[in-house]
Amino acid sequence: MKSDELYALLRRRGVLWPSAEIYGGAQGLYDYGPLGAALKRRVEDAWTAWFVGRSPDYYRIEPAELVPEAVVRASGHLENFTDPEISCEACHAVFRAETVVEKVRPEGVDGLAPNQIEEVVRANHLKCPNCGSTALAVPRAFNLMFDVPFGVQRSERAYLLPETAQASYLAFARMWEVGRKALPLGIAVVGRAYRNEIAPRQVLFRMRSFTQAELQIFFDPADPPGRLGAYAEEKVPVLRVDRREKGEGSTAFVPARELVASGLPEFYVDHLVHLLRFLREVLGFPTERIRFFEKSDKERAFYNRIQFDAEVHLESLGGYKEVGAVHYRGDYDLRRHGDGSGKDLSVARPSGERVVPHVLELTFGVDRNLWALADVHLAHEGERTVWKLPPYLAPVQAGVFPLIPKEQRPFAERLTADLLAVGVAAAYDEASSIGKRYARMDEAGTPFCVTVDGPSLADGPDRGTVTLRQRDSKAQERVPAAELAARLAPSLRFPRPTMPPPL
Amino acid sequence: MKSDELYALLRRRGVLWPSAEIYGGAQGLYDYGPLGAALKRRVEDAWTAWFVGRSPDYYRIEPAELVPEAVVRASGHLENFTDPEISCEACHAVFRAETVVEKVRPEGVDGLAPNQIEEVVRANHLKCPNCGSTALAVPRAFNLMFDVPFGVQRSERAYLLPETAQASYLAFARMWEVGRKALPLGIAVVGRAYRNEIAPRQVLFRMRSFTQAELQIFFDPADPPGRLGAYAEEKVPVLRVDRREKGEGSTAFVPARELVASGLPEFYVDHLVHLLRFLREVLGFPTERIRFFEKSDKERAFYNRIQFDAEVHLESLGGYKEVGAVHYRGDYDLRRHGDGSGKDLSVARPSGERVVPHVLELTFGVDRNLWALADVHLAHEGERTVWKLPPYLAPVQAGVFPLIPKEQRPFAERLTADLLAVGVAAAYDEASSIGKRYARMDEAGTPFCVTVDGPSLADGPDRGTVTLRQRDSKAQERVPAAELAARLAPSLRFPRPTMPPPL
Repeated sequence: MKSDELYALLRRRGVLWPSAEIYGGAQGLYDYGPLGAALKRRVEDAWTAWFVGRSPDYYRIEPAELVPEAVVRASGHLENFTDPEISCEACHAVFRAETVVEKVRPEGVDGLAPNQIEEVVRANHLKCPNCGSTALAVPRAFNLMFDVPFGVQRSERAYLLPETAQASYLAFARMWEVGRKALPLGIAVVGRAYRNEIAPRQVLFRMRSFTQAELQIFFDPADPPGRLGAYAEEKVPVLRVDRREKGEGSTAFVPARELVASGLPEFYVDHLVHLLRFLREVLGFPTERIRFFEKSDKERAFYNRIQFDAEVHLESLGGYKEVGAVHYRGDYDLRRHGDGSGKDLSVARPSGERVVPHVLELTFGVDRNLWALADVHLAHEGERTVWKLPPYLAPVQAGVFPLIPKEQRPFAERLTADLLAVGVAAAYDEASSIGKRYARMDEAGTPFCVTVDGPSLADGPDRGTVTLRQRDSKAQERVPAAELAARLAPSLRFPRPTMPPPL
Repeated sequence: MKSDELYALLRRRGVLWPSAEIYGGAQGLYDYGPLGAALKRRVEDAWTAWFVGRSPDYYRIEPAELVPEAVVRASGHLENFTDPEISCEACHAVFRAETVVEKVRPEGVDGLAPNQIEEVVRANHLKCPNCGSTALAVPRAFNLMFDVPFGVQRSERAYLLPETAQASYLAFARMWEVGRKALPLGIAVVGRAYRNEIAPRQVLFRMRSFTQAELQIFFDPADPPGRLGAYAEEKVPVLRVDRREKGEGSTAFVPARELVASGLPEFYVDHLVHLLRFLREVLGFPTERIRFFEKSDKERAFYNRIQFDAEVHLESLGGYKEVGAVHYRGDYDLRRHGDGSGKDLSVARPSGERVVPHVLELTFGVDRNLWALADVHLAHEGERTVWKLPPYLAPVQAGVFPLIPKEQRPFAERLTADLLAVGVAAAYDEASSIGKRYARMDEAGTPFCVTVDGPSLADGPDRGTVTLRQRDSKAQERVPAAELAARLAPSLRFPRPTMPPPL
């Protein structure tokens, strides 16, 4: 489906819609409706189980999303978290510099200073994309953070977190005390980040308030966590800098051990593979639509020593889109916050020697992946519109329908309550024909539908059988009602990593 | 425990700590650590199961937490969401007016205009609580909302939601279309609200960023939802306005049907009872520590027709503290947003006649209840410090210990993984003596501990028995490892309301 069609469908089904819709919306802000909110929580929980569940020394915290100015000064965001913008002096429209120069410079403006961007504009006689005037102002750096007057005098300044990662760096010292005082230590946040994007667009892809799931793994560079083990031969879809520089744009499927042989650290490749497996085995994205896009020295932030963005090819957006990344950030973050706070953030090795931990960051855009789950799994199949979500991610896991509500309502309601009681997200529906009820559930991604009919009641309330229908195969079979929950349970569990030996 | 002791314990255990702690903290902002974050999510999920689970027409959404200015203008917050403040012209300290006048006016300043507060200050020759000067400035209304420069020109103004409720009012029109176009319709939000409190204090009780769980029930005033049914004789602990006006301060335990006979609408009392049952049966607060405090005309916001605050008596804070409320808001909200947005928010009754739905609001302070769960359930018992959380709320549900790690590690790790796979929050711990491991789990509120020892392995990896220890009774028994999950499951399920007949 194209973006517009997909968005219209999601909006109509109440998966998401523009915030403050009755006021005409607010650019870059979206609300999740019942299906969207439930799907989002499941994706967050699946992410937590897969990444945070990888070690007993990895923890998920929930920080406040406002920080004092000193934090973003130390982190470098006050100075550097900018996007170059160009305004038009004729029509007063404001654009991302990238938008103005994209025709003559498709590779974008990453790494260019405002005066270099200006040279590009002047040399090519570029015009305002809105009114066509050449009266374009000098490009300037626009800081993307939202600042908030804070405190009773409103004289302090707080900032909405531009990335959840900062909260984990701030928590490191405390978590070192709370945990077992050993590296590696992981601190994860699933929470909101805020950016005053110059041009919010593509619905969930450039929002002004969005949800990140990020795990920061603090480790001793002399003993980094992660061994390939059984995954040495795993083929990783990559587009590396050297091939890009030769003008090649296709994905290569390279065994993990070859990536290590090419110079990437084993712990880094291990985490690429773990992210690959999450996208493929947990979110169900086909391998051939995934690639890891290596960022060059110029493209990545200066503190990132290695960066591969995880991208998924999305039909709705016409190409590969970033949905996550693995960043090796070195000791930049703890050094900066150590300097900024005046607190020594080094820790003692077992030998007694002190070390400032390095950080490996696994970052994951919850909203973007939600869109990707719709793009990849929601499709028209003949007459049907069916959202083939992995069952454990589905907002509603079992639809329960009485064939004739007047007769089977109590049985069906009780069955719904029984399923809810054991943790199955069951939804009772008695409106319209069975066919229409199936269709509604197909569109919502519900993997199982259960119909209660006359024969269900014949054997008494605890012994009856019901019809279980599978969304993907449309296969139907009769199942004893009392065995239903146990029958569904295995499909509804999140995949989890096998617990590794202590890292 | 006193507040300081409780806070120190929670901080040490990593339940919560001041945000940006290494920078000296940020007033009114807190981070939840691993135990706090997990407990908070469980409280939110239990709340959702209990309140949103009451009807298939009640939905939980997840809105953005920034709204355009037009929204807070229409809602009245721009004009009225203020707290009177008094600053000292000598020392420049700023106080909530309530703090300055509390000695001479213990009932507070609710309903007083700034000039009336000034009269109280002058008539009583009140002094600055900080420096003792009488040079107090004229009281002024301080707006508690955080405003955020928004958009590429930074000329628009957005506001961090001062209450999650507003997002539900904004979503009503869309949810009417998404749902079955019938009243009652419930829209719940569990999310952040933000207030620039003049004097943040009492840790989780007056924060600048906090989490609310709020359900807005939109209903036809001619057919309000909620019948007492089996709960007509339920004794509701109330402190009503008439008794307060007579100077009586003790709680009366009044049967629900008598509250109705006294003039309160049955649907309102039904929801008081449902909230009472949540506090008692789900959060485990003893009835004798709960009361519903009725707000008088002057005390409640003018749009609230009926308001009882749910309060819990907390030893740590020396008295009753508000943890939730039931507000009958009439049609105020949809009328205001209808006017503000120019959109007709009335809906058609089955008869065709149009009606602007009324709102019953159930509001619940997640952070405050988290503190109350610590106050009520965390205590010293002889040598033990034990947090007697209801098992389904405990952050860790089962601690798994190998008696001799070297020998039983693989068995215990596998058992941990098996429990996690079926949704039991199990945590593996092999550090220090079994007694110390029990003590750590007691303090964290873990209801069950499982010890793997020599005999566990004797019968082979799938058939061994383990020692199951209950937190509260300290009773121990041997249980087959393979039966453990099924044995724990019933204790780990959220209590749910029995599904009512269609409302």
